Amino acid sequence: MDKKISDKKSDLLKEANIEIEMCLETHHKLTEAEMEEIKSHIKINTFEKGTILLREGEYSDKSYSVYKGCVRQYYLVDGEEKTTFFYADGQTIFPHANLEARTPSKYFLDCIEETTLSITSPESEKVIFEKMPKFIPMARASMREELNKYQEMLSTYIMSSPEQRYLDLLKNRPELLNKVPHYQLASYLGVKPESLSRIRKRIMQKQTV
Amino acid sequence: MDKKISDKKSDLLKEANIEIEMCLETHHKLTEAEMEEIKSHIKINTFEKGTILLREGEYSDKSYSVYKGCVRQYYLVDGEEKTTFFYADGQTIFPHANLEARTPSKYFLDCIEETTLSITSPESEKVIFEKMPKFIPMARASMREELNKYQEMLSTYIMSSPEQRYLDLLKNRPELLNKVPHYQLASYLGVKPESLSRIRKRIMQKQTV
Repeated sequence: MDKKISDKKSDLLKEANIEIEMCLETHHKLTEAEMEEIKSHIKINTFEKGTILLREGEYSDKSYSVYKGCVRQYYLVDGEEKTTFFYADGQTIFPHANLEARTPSKYFLDCIEETTLSITSPESEKVIFEKMPKFIPMARASMREELNKYQEMLSTYIMSSPEQRYLDLLKNRPELLNKVPHYQLASYLGVKPESLSRIRKRIMQKQTV
Repeated sequence: MDKKISDKKSDLLKEANIEIEMCLETHHKLTEAEMEEIKSHIKINTFEKGTILLREGEYSDKSYSVYKGCVRQYYLVDGEEKTTFFYADGQTIFPHANLEARTPSKYFLDCIEETTLSITSPESEKVIFEKMPKFIPMARASMREELNKYQEMLSTYIMSSPEQRYLDLLKNRPELLNKVPHYQLASYLGVKPESLSRIRKRIMQKQTV
């Protein structure tokens, strides 16, 4: 591997490791030994822009957490990409695809920029839970929190117009607007690209008045 | 209590108990003793139509499963009810409201008809997990399944038009269309009541051609 790339990857790994430690420390109040144990079961990897992590029809039993970069979730409907989510900044991806239940993935996951992820498997989760049972209620609370976030996102989506959704992104996830191509953003907001252009123009006009 | 009502309630409890047993048997392959243990920690209750289970601003640490009836989730936005979900037929409600995290509920939960629910508290979950550790991965898998359902609902909502959403309900949850008032259904589909009337008319015309 090119030395520059290798150094950069190693820096990213260090950063991700520090972030995992901070996250575990803040949320779970673990001892150093417990932290090391957990970290030994979590794999960290950096993927090039354009890497497809999961394809429609494939199986996956992993969970991912995004430390740097951005993963897009999209469906292929009659040959058209329908973007339904952008995972970034500490968000967790729990693919629905499950080999045991014979449920193949309905969507694709691709890295829309260079992305560093932590990857957990059911086997490593099992070991963590067996060795540290106190982590069980924490993990359950985290997953419930994640579930509640989705419920709220669904509610917010139902209650808002495409313009409100755009303003919401502008307020809560402004970094996305620079990362994501126009047509993917339009699809995510549930409108055609030309409607998103009109929404952007309208908001620009309001801001300059 | 009126004997008729009391008999009906007792019938509902019996039915719900049988359903819990069937559900535990199908999904979790538990022994009879384990089943009894779990059932002893789950409360079952029947609520009259119109009962509000949770209000905006209140706290709740319970989870509910719907055995009969229907619970609506709605937000109050500028005095207007915005319906965002209908829970029925075995669906589970995990309110986001959490006293420990000082997160009050942002929405209301009301029974739009007489509704029988099983109710679980964090304390009873803890006892179940301590006594039957084998239930932990099952419970985790169930919650992940629930999380995946929400992710899929959000994706489907993003990808579909209000008419497609209505057709989807007609296909997958036809019982809802009889239970739910027109204005609540319109709100849930993200349209004004008059738009829903037009959608219904258009679909009727297509079906009669």
